[in-house]
Amino acid sequence: MSTRSAGVPFRDTSESPLAGRAPRVLLLGSGELGREIAIEAMRLGAEVVAADRYSNAPAMQVAHRAHTLAMTDGAALRALVEREEPDVIVPEIEQIDTTALEQLETEGWTVIPTARATRATMDRERIRRLAAEEARVSTGRYAFADDVRSAAVAAEHVGYPCLVKAMTSSSGHGMSLVQDRSELEGAYLEAAHGGRVPSARVMLEEQVHFDLEVTVLTLRAYAADGSVRTQFLSPVAHVRPGTVYHSSWQPAELPATIVARLEAAAGAVTDRLGGVGLYGVECFVRGEEVLFSEVSPRPHDTGLVTLASQWNSEFALHARAILGYPVPTIEPAVPAAAHVILGVREQENPVFGHLRQALSVPGVRLFLFGKPRSHPGRRLGVAVARGGTIAEARERAERAAHWVESFRGAGTA
Amino acid sequence: MSTRSAGVPFRDTSESPLAGRAPRVLLLGSGELGREIAIEAMRLGAEVVAADRYSNAPAMQVAHRAHTLAMTDGAALRALVEREEPDVIVPEIEQIDTTALEQLETEGWTVIPTARATRATMDRERIRRLAAEEARVSTGRYAFADDVRSAAVAAEHVGYPCLVKAMTSSSGHGMSLVQDRSELEGAYLEAAHGGRVPSARVMLEEQVHFDLEVTVLTLRAYAADGSVRTQFLSPVAHVRPGTVYHSSWQPAELPATIVARLEAAAGAVTDRLGGVGLYGVECFVRGEEVLFSEVSPRPHDTGLVTLASQWNSEFALHARAILGYPVPTIEPAVPAAAHVILGVREQENPVFGHLRQALSVPGVRLFLFGKPRSHPGRRLGVAVARGGTIAEARERAERAAHWVESFRGAGTA
Repeated sequence: MSTRSAGVPFRDTSESPLAGRAPRVLLLGSGELGREIAIEAMRLGAEVVAADRYSNAPAMQVAHRAHTLAMTDGAALRALVEREEPDVIVPEIEQIDTTALEQLETEGWTVIPTARATRATMDRERIRRLAAEEARVSTGRYAFADDVRSAAVAAEHVGYPCLVKAMTSSSGHGMSLVQDRSELEGAYLEAAHGGRVPSARVMLEEQVHFDLEVTVLTLRAYAADGSVRTQFLSPVAHVRPGTVYHSSWQPAELPATIVARLEAAAGAVTDRLGGVGLYGVECFVRGEEVLFSEVSPRPHDTGLVTLASQWNSEFALHARAILGYPVPTIEPAVPAAAHVILGVREQENPVFGHLRQALSVPGVRLFLFGKPRSHPGRRLGVAVARGGTIAEARERAERAAHWVESFRGAGTA
Repeated sequence: MSTRSAGVPFRDTSESPLAGRAPRVLLLGSGELGREIAIEAMRLGAEVVAADRYSNAPAMQVAHRAHTLAMTDGAALRALVEREEPDVIVPEIEQIDTTALEQLETEGWTVIPTARATRATMDRERIRRLAAEEARVSTGRYAFADDVRSAAVAAEHVGYPCLVKAMTSSSGHGMSLVQDRSELEGAYLEAAHGGRVPSARVMLEEQVHFDLEVTVLTLRAYAADGSVRTQFLSPVAHVRPGTVYHSSWQPAELPATIVARLEAAAGAVTDRLGGVGLYGVECFVRGEEVLFSEVSPRPHDTGLVTLASQWNSEFALHARAILGYPVPTIEPAVPAAAHVILGVREQENPVFGHLRQALSVPGVRLFLFGKPRSHPGRRLGVAVARGGTIAEARERAERAAHWVESFRGAGTA
């Protein structure tokens, strides 16, 4: 009989890490988002254990302990949890055996935000139906398909051009834009095989002609009175020339009416997902309209900008929430931007250059993730900037990132 | 024959940590200041090795590797340096064999800011003479003594009440305030034996009746053009009810004329010390007068407030400077304060409580250092706060720190 009870308690005390039983955080996935979560959790006195499928992943380099394993292997995952006995299990990526997570939650282990929410947000069909059909939030037209033929029917329903998406990805992998029927088969195969987990079922979606793509970072955390309260960070705007996150800025400079609609949509969806922690709710803004797109049950790529825009970054807020500590009102964002630094070739030991020029740009900071290996398009770092205006911050972050990317060294050019 | 050349190069490229030869930072001393330096260096892509005389020290918990050794043992220190081959050696505390450091520097290893500066700032006589007699900066009256008898002569020179200080401490240990001749012997013995390193020679100093005690955090770093430039952070004000750092705030709200005098004094002293990195120049403000007191060749305790007041904390600036990256203009500080959280008893595994109340104070963040052991007066954490005004920030930081200290748990009450 287990005496554990799932869920993060409203916490008041803490022992010390390593010397005693500090709150123990197990990161499943140890990338750059995990690294910042690890830092903030450690600053709050937690003990952090980092896991990923390769060694020396970014968060592993700062954590108290690290484990390398295939997290898609339910038995290995269970063995890790039983060995480390974490107070909170924090999925940072999607390639995790979510069925095993749900079973562990049933047994009393605590998954952030909840195992059900982790699973629901990974499944495009489940989360879309939850948003559109349960929470009654507006979305673009959508349909699902299980083969090329049904994809053609679905495409007629949503209309060309449309997006074909893998069922289990939130970072743009396995996603393509299809102009007409002739491109559909390739897109279907890409979605079926290029997602984080291969799946015959895919999602088709109207290509929304939006004015702006935004992420509403939504924090569910204890308030001083012990109730779980939802707060919204100022919307983060972002652009992706391809399908993957490229640059973002905050605040998004939207009218208050639109911000209110974004918060209403984010609140409606995250209320149904529950738990504590930070969600990244992705929406389109089209005229006066707000359309829900998808949601991450964790700090979001586009929220890297909060390393510049807020004293409490999305990572600091997430760490505080998942440890069960109260979060008073979140401070407003100052104008800031972030721009990714991508690898362009397959390479061990990526080398960065033009750091001198990049760091000479006023108001810029660089975060290099320390990944042991580069491949084309892999995110190796981010330039973040503050500016007197959003335009200035964006120009600075982009200039710094492009300096580093333009270096003809091993990792980046 | 060594091919090393001492000094931090103006750096443009970086390989990756662990996978390649990233700039390697060796922290000699791994306390809470070192922990923040480690975090910021790692964010910049460095490889960080932490050393201290006890295991699981704060910076060791985040560093890539850790070593436990007596750093007062020159041979052990040399063996560590030769094994780790650091690009920069960063003394974080004073209990280090500085003669060995100077020898290592002679052989081409790089010490931050320089081995000579590290040694000079630890030696109250050397640094006082450098400031008062070479840099011609005002100080309180001072004298030196080698026994109780010469201490009595020195005390007559500086006048009662006076301070008797150990020769090698900058954190207030081994320091006492003496009202009259009867208290002198006890104070002399405390200074001779209670300092970081026992020494018959002690310093006596006028008790300056100051209006405000401030730290001028002074950054020597590369500018975009490759020249080393000095920048000053907005002065940090602080109070210490005893002799040890207790709370600080920034900005210090001083008239521009006083700030200019503080910067002139800090610049004159640090120009003579050289190297790159951040110095904490401690001064008294008395009316229109500015009196130099002492200087740390590293981020300063009182500068913990910059975790709240500046986007680039003193630790972020220090990390960037010692890695040889350029630092453009430092941004102004927003009103913020810091208040220490002290242990009150001897205890393994300090326990913190009332975290709920502390973290419910608006604008507050807690940094708990994860030290494996508490003793009375040991700094175990810090509460930092932002506020609309300095008064508000100070009240918030103090309220949060006192909540934690008032917990009747193992570590703090």
